[in-house]
Amino acid sequence: MNKFITPRNVDYSQWYLDIIEHAQLAENSVVRGCMVIKPYGFALWENIQATLDKMFKDTGHINAYFPLFIPKSFFSKEAEHVEGFASECAIVTHYRLKKDPNSKGLIIDDTAKLEEELVVRPTSETIIWSTYRNWIQSYRDLPLLINQWANVVRWEMRTRLFLRTTEFLWQEGHTAHATKEEAMEEARLMLNIYASFAEQYMAIPVIKGVKTANERFAGAEDTYCIEAMMQDGKALQAGTSHFLGQNFAKAFDVKFLDRNNELQYVWATSWGVSTRLIGAIIMTHSDDKGLVLPPKLAPTQVILIPIFRTEEEKSKVLEKLNNIKNQLIENNIKVKLDDRDEFSPGWKFTEWEMHGVPLRLAIGPRDIDNNTVEFARRDTGEKHILPQDNIIENVKNYLENIQKSLFEKALDFRDAHTYIIDTWDEFIEKIEQGNFIWAHWDGTTETELKIKELTKATIRLIPLSPNLENGSCILTGKPSKYRVLFARAY
Amino acid sequence: MNKFITPRNVDYSQWYLDIIEHAQLAENSVVRGCMVIKPYGFALWENIQATLDKMFKDTGHINAYFPLFIPKSFFSKEAEHVEGFASECAIVTHYRLKKDPNSKGLIIDDTAKLEEELVVRPTSETIIWSTYRNWIQSYRDLPLLINQWANVVRWEMRTRLFLRTTEFLWQEGHTAHATKEEAMEEARLMLNIYASFAEQYMAIPVIKGVKTANERFAGAEDTYCIEAMMQDGKALQAGTSHFLGQNFAKAFDVKFLDRNNELQYVWATSWGVSTRLIGAIIMTHSDDKGLVLPPKLAPTQVILIPIFRTEEEKSKVLEKLNNIKNQLIENNIKVKLDDRDEFSPGWKFTEWEMHGVPLRLAIGPRDIDNNTVEFARRDTGEKHILPQDNIIENVKNYLENIQKSLFEKALDFRDAHTYIIDTWDEFIEKIEQGNFIWAHWDGTTETELKIKELTKATIRLIPLSPNLENGSCILTGKPSKYRVLFARAY
Repeated sequence: MNKFITPRNVDYSQWYLDIIEHAQLAENSVVRGCMVIKPYGFALWENIQATLDKMFKDTGHINAYFPLFIPKSFFSKEAEHVEGFASECAIVTHYRLKKDPNSKGLIIDDTAKLEEELVVRPTSETIIWSTYRNWIQSYRDLPLLINQWANVVRWEMRTRLFLRTTEFLWQEGHTAHATKEEAMEEARLMLNIYASFAEQYMAIPVIKGVKTANERFAGAEDTYCIEAMMQDGKALQAGTSHFLGQNFAKAFDVKFLDRNNELQYVWATSWGVSTRLIGAIIMTHSDDKGLVLPPKLAPTQVILIPIFRTEEEKSKVLEKLNNIKNQLIENNIKVKLDDRDEFSPGWKFTEWEMHGVPLRLAIGPRDIDNNTVEFARRDTGEKHILPQDNIIENVKNYLENIQKSLFEKALDFRDAHTYIIDTWDEFIEKIEQGNFIWAHWDGTTETELKIKELTKATIRLIPLSPNLENGSCILTGKPSKYRVLFARAY
Repeated sequence: MNKFITPRNVDYSQWYLDIIEHAQLAENSVVRGCMVIKPYGFALWENIQATLDKMFKDTGHINAYFPLFIPKSFFSKEAEHVEGFASECAIVTHYRLKKDPNSKGLIIDDTAKLEEELVVRPTSETIIWSTYRNWIQSYRDLPLLINQWANVVRWEMRTRLFLRTTEFLWQEGHTAHATKEEAMEEARLMLNIYASFAEQYMAIPVIKGVKTANERFAGAEDTYCIEAMMQDGKALQAGTSHFLGQNFAKAFDVKFLDRNNELQYVWATSWGVSTRLIGAIIMTHSDDKGLVLPPKLAPTQVILIPIFRTEEEKSKVLEKLNNIKNQLIENNIKVKLDDRDEFSPGWKFTEWEMHGVPLRLAIGPRDIDNNTVEFARRDTGEKHILPQDNIIENVKNYLENIQKSLFEKALDFRDAHTYIIDTWDEFIEKIEQGNFIWAHWDGTTETELKIKELTKATIRLIPLSPNLENGSCILTGKPSKYRVLFARAY
């Protein structure tokens, strides 16, 4: 309990916003739908970025940077892509403001109108494939394994911090390959990297799969995804990797001479994760006391709090804590000592709980006498008085245990909220309660949309290697060979 | 000499563009004035970014992220700021495209017109100070030491890769302080960080100073700068740090309660460097064989080239080079082995010279017999046959020497092209030849502009601690107390 944070069972949406506010992760800006990512939230993003960037580079990818603006006409070149993005994009029409002769303000200078309007990139397939056209001539130029860290803009009507914002930060990989098989392998490799990152760093269990035609990325042949369960039982898509076939190569006429000296269209993938991952971390691990962060990504892993009454006690306690702080820094543990005078220890406990710091160490006068330190785990709230010896080893063990048990707790939660369902009534009931449901589906978009209309549940994914079994569609009763995953989603 | 690179003395501008093309640093995109930063150029930027980011964090700064879009009305709030930026900004007016009923293309959906137009940020003072208003209440909230890595857009009419592009990448620091003195100190601290980075990492000697009123950032009280000399004798401003006074605090009504419980306006600084630094590196160090990079920032510090005729020689040479490669990697030296079969050693030599790799090691059959390796310095072209023993130590020494001698060479060049001038005729002559000139100036904007009109030279800076001496203005003959730096500039 905490007076700043609305409990989950009172108002889940408000709980989410309260956590963001009191952990100082982000806030809405004056520009509709655009957020300010505050320093603490950005430090979390930097850790996500650094970890993923290394994983990308270790698998042979390199970074580059492509323009923010895309000529309007590029969007019409790939038929499905245009449908997906044209209706929600920011459009630059002019390049100059001038003083309003009738007021103190500024107005658009009509003489500075662009010949062709520019779209602020909602995703960069079009501008990148128009560039690849000049970069790829022969099979020797392939594969091209490029990633970009960038901001993108999608004009969302209903926005929510981190989960859906008009502007967001992300990475987008865009690779080019000589063969279909190699491109498909790349799309799956990146899916696996996203899944490893989610499970090993974010401590979020995910299910891997492929989207239905209806849920596919606009312009993709196949969209692979990872789906995670939030604490309200809803699904959150935490990363997608697309096999784009030759769609963008054809749209932008990107061909290469193969080993037999024949011209072929290039095969493509794209894949991305965004600041949305921060929303996933918040909603997977946090509790009614505030944010809970996995140690591997936490900007501050250990917070040190001094407890004292007299000046003499203060100097002894701080000396000890400074010593511990330096030891932890030497061991690459991210530590902060909160030695501010203006706040009480109790206030600091609450403050750093709300910030989700995984481990708190406190030392008071009694600990000085006993050579002890109080360890408090953010995730379980457990406290233990331990000797000050072996501090590094103890801290490392705690952080590892917290990382591990956050994952296990989330996995247990998901398991407890996942059902195999065969009747429509039960389907409705379990969806309403907030669960993942494995059910049979007849494979048609019509049925998929009907189920969505009736229950707000969507097909989150088709498993990569489905268990084959004969069943009948949960809605239509038509024959089905395997189950797919249904849930309401963010 | 190199058939791909136009020599400097034939066409300096073309030389610059040839280097960028053949080092594969960047290229113009289809969007006017916007560049694609290619992987090799981006790797250089990543090294610049990582180094600066650490320097910022070591001095107490933290990163955050503010919106790409700024409401149009914000620009009119600071009188000088609007003059500086309104005439060259990209303006978003609509948020939806629709199908053109008369063609296959897309047109703007007129029903999706923004109530207030949004400006794509040319710099973020306005959006950030409108945000700081809510973050700062008391002196306890100060200082606020925030930096942002971002893309910005300025609608430049004449663009040039890296030096002046419509969109560019940069960092912008925006700090808030309780006192004027502290803000001024911060502005100078950041100037010193930029100067250290330029000299110690980019190997570019810089002169520190303050801009004249005419050359000041729009909205600043003082603009500090570092200026570097390019190989054509022109100056390049390589970083600026602004003391903003209370201008933005007043424009956005940002006040704090000081220790005496009185409301005061907050004091501000902002400071930035951009992808322009890559242009400075290119033009300071490169030669007619292509790019030359300082070892501390080079994406590849050492290139290994095998030389062989027979398969047996190949396997011996590659075994040895792979061994060296692994040793270098273990010692955190950025190394690449070019073992491609389709290119000859000579082709590879040229290729990596054009890429500016500081050090080349080559091993052929004779080196196998003699236990030797050929070291070739990119900067001087010197070659030495050395024993394979102590390879790590030798490589490290070479890299250190190259870093040092690039700086010294640039410094010597600048010294040789810097004149103290007292007559107008000589001033014109030396400016025309491409030089830095220390001359007296009467302190008026009128004279400054007249000199610019007559010679295209601008006042690059006033020294931070000018040598006081009585002199007379180079143009008007009016009395002057100290010399200022004149040059033509990028």
